[in-house]
Amino acid sequence: MLPHSDIAAGGLRPAQPETGSEERLARAAWSRIAEPADPAAGLVVESYGAAGALTWLRSAARAPGKLDYRTRQRVERWAPRLPALSPERDLYVLERLGGTLLIPGDPAWPASLADLGHTAPHCLWVRGRLPAARAATADGGEAADRARAVAVVGSRASTRYGESVAGEFAFQLAERGVSVISGGAYGIDAAAHRGALAARDGAPTVAVLAGGVDRLYPAGNAALLEEIVRVGALLAEMPPGASPGRHRFLARNRIIAALGAATIVVEASSRSGALSTANHATDLLRPLGAVPGPVTSAASVGCHQLLRDAQATCVTGVEDILELAGPLGTVAGEDAPAGPPNLLDGLDPLASRVLDALPARAGAEVENVARVSGLAPREVLAALGTLQLAGRVRRSAGKWARVQATNQRTP
Amino acid sequence: MLPHSDIAAGGLRPAQPETGSEERLARAAWSRIAEPADPAAGLVVESYGAAGALTWLRSAARAPGKLDYRTRQRVERWAPRLPALSPERDLYVLERLGGTLLIPGDPAWPASLADLGHTAPHCLWVRGRLPAARAATADGGEAADRARAVAVVGSRASTRYGESVAGEFAFQLAERGVSVISGGAYGIDAAAHRGALAARDGAPTVAVLAGGVDRLYPAGNAALLEEIVRVGALLAEMPPGASPGRHRFLARNRIIAALGAATIVVEASSRSGALSTANHATDLLRPLGAVPGPVTSAASVGCHQLLRDAQATCVTGVEDILELAGPLGTVAGEDAPAGPPNLLDGLDPLASRVLDALPARAGAEVENVARVSGLAPREVLAALGTLQLAGRVRRSAGKWARVQATNQRTP
Repeated sequence: MLPHSDIAAGGLRPAQPETGSEERLARAAWSRIAEPADPAAGLVVESYGAAGALTWLRSAARAPGKLDYRTRQRVERWAPRLPALSPERDLYVLERLGGTLLIPGDPAWPASLADLGHTAPHCLWVRGRLPAARAATADGGEAADRARAVAVVGSRASTRYGESVAGEFAFQLAERGVSVISGGAYGIDAAAHRGALAARDGAPTVAVLAGGVDRLYPAGNAALLEEIVRVGALLAEMPPGASPGRHRFLARNRIIAALGAATIVVEASSRSGALSTANHATDLLRPLGAVPGPVTSAASVGCHQLLRDAQATCVTGVEDILELAGPLGTVAGEDAPAGPPNLLDGLDPLASRVLDALPARAGAEVENVARVSGLAPREVLAALGTLQLAGRVRRSAGKWARVQATNQRTP
Repeated sequence: MLPHSDIAAGGLRPAQPETGSEERLARAAWSRIAEPADPAAGLVVESYGAAGALTWLRSAARAPGKLDYRTRQRVERWAPRLPALSPERDLYVLERLGGTLLIPGDPAWPASLADLGHTAPHCLWVRGRLPAARAATADGGEAADRARAVAVVGSRASTRYGESVAGEFAFQLAERGVSVISGGAYGIDAAAHRGALAARDGAPTVAVLAGGVDRLYPAGNAALLEEIVRVGALLAEMPPGASPGRHRFLARNRIIAALGAATIVVEASSRSGALSTANHATDLLRPLGAVPGPVTSAASVGCHQLLRDAQATCVTGVEDILELAGPLGTVAGEDAPAGPPNLLDGLDPLASRVLDALPARAGAEVENVARVSGLAPREVLAALGTLQLAGRVRRSAGKWARVQATNQRTP
């Protein structure tokens, strides 16, 4: 963590939350400078305001020798992105798409994100309208209500059974005024969004993307995501143009879990990313529900793991979900264990991020990888060494490239 | 309960467990005198020995006026069956079938039945061989091991999914030397027995019947039950000739639950009798497992209830079962709630037993119903009044008969 003494030495004074245009631009900048869920960035922005923290970072980057080791490490992660920084341009892109930037303190900012602490997003890049904003309009100023949103997530490798259950649950939730939060992915996510969209005058559905909201990813869901923009909302913590990498997908899942009063996993294989959303829900003390399926179905293995090992509640209908998400619902995850390991395929998080930052086919220089991954060059170098030993990358003509393997799973 | 003073007044002295032929005959007699799971009968037999308790009952029946109200109530329940009592004849029937009578203290008596306390069966009428007896032969005197038996139960109204899961689990359990205990019914029970029988040199499977072991009930499973006699064991707490009634089915379930180191419910509708076995397992602090299924399947609703409301463990494979049943397994049911109510269709237990004791079509006199149900005539009369008000029975020419209704579910 950044010692307060160091930041104070920069001559900064603690700031109250601000929503002025300078703060807005600075938060937009921080969403590009730091990778998602970087608690050090969250701490410095929270302590000194985004604009103040940005001023400090610029001066610290000019004289890193004065910093203590840990702070320098952070600055070396963030500084490579300073030169190309242009939050005005990012905001211009968003505005051209009809979107808006939300920062903490804005009336439409989801209060539930505060539970993420220092890993809360710096801002939200939004296309469409968030449920809270809609409620404020439709119901004459009613406060945002976390209980009116539920996360419905699951595998991309889903079955017809899981898709029909996800669609039916989401439809009924939307009909009852509960927004369905999901990740916009193939499979269960898409089925949940579609079910919610099918409800006439239903609550708006929200897709939280791992990359920028200008990139309708995955491409096969572009039409669906455009429909969500019209009726609900797309949101991202990364600025327009940001690409979705595995690390960002996993970090994105914490926002899905935080926005929902409960998280429901409909289908998940034993190592599905949906299990990371489930873990986040448990960490956030949000109730966790899992839909059972045939024990003969690989697509339900992860749900059964959650039922057996993570104290998830068995969910068989929308009434179960409403009970779980309701204000009187129990906090199911309070004593739950941390959950299944190895979501990163045995790679440590740094190595995984570095591998993710390497181009699919071409080679890249260390500085390039550092900028893309948001890690310090020395961290990138260390991780590349590990990856080389593991046979996952190779060096050729001064550049680093992935070793193509047939059995590598894509994020 | 029977006050000790009253019994002592009969001049009886407390007895140690005996296995001699007089005690054996007396326990056989008590299995016909008292209905299953009658704690008062269990208490008097445990306190004074079966033979002593029988002597006392005969004298008490001759002079009921000397008894206090509660004791007289019990004696009036038991006494109607004294005149026709002939344990020698019952044992002769059993011997002609190649069966044996087990009583507490016999080497092959399942030690786990002690957990039933005063509702433990007075004796077991056995055809075939119990797992413990087999283990003692094959493994050179190894002690009976509760962990080597698991109850696998479920609905008669099963699906192919449930039957194939039950069969597969039972097959694998038997292959690993774990006896499968079930109820010999259609559906899941039959699939479990068949799966266990399919294992070559597997552990013997055990069917616990609600009626006598001479009655292969249900008739459609007669061939299966005969096969179980050859390879495993049929057992009953009621003597030969006893008919299976709903009350006896529900009481029988406690023996299934007690014999298993764990109880696994494979498929159960929301009001399946298998849920009563699950409740017994929980009451006995035995681990309870439930197999999930599609939320769209009515046959899995009861399993999902157990997962959600009774803290049952989600079981998806035989490894889960072995873990649950193992000596190091957790006692899942310790803090579990009492479970779903209304297994008796809204009838109180007495009324249900009386209804059960009425012939299917013909009428019966009160004394007749008392003898069949094992209740005192005054209790029968009170229950018939309730049933008459509920429109379930009618009186005609001094006899009582059922009112035939199209929507009545049979046990």
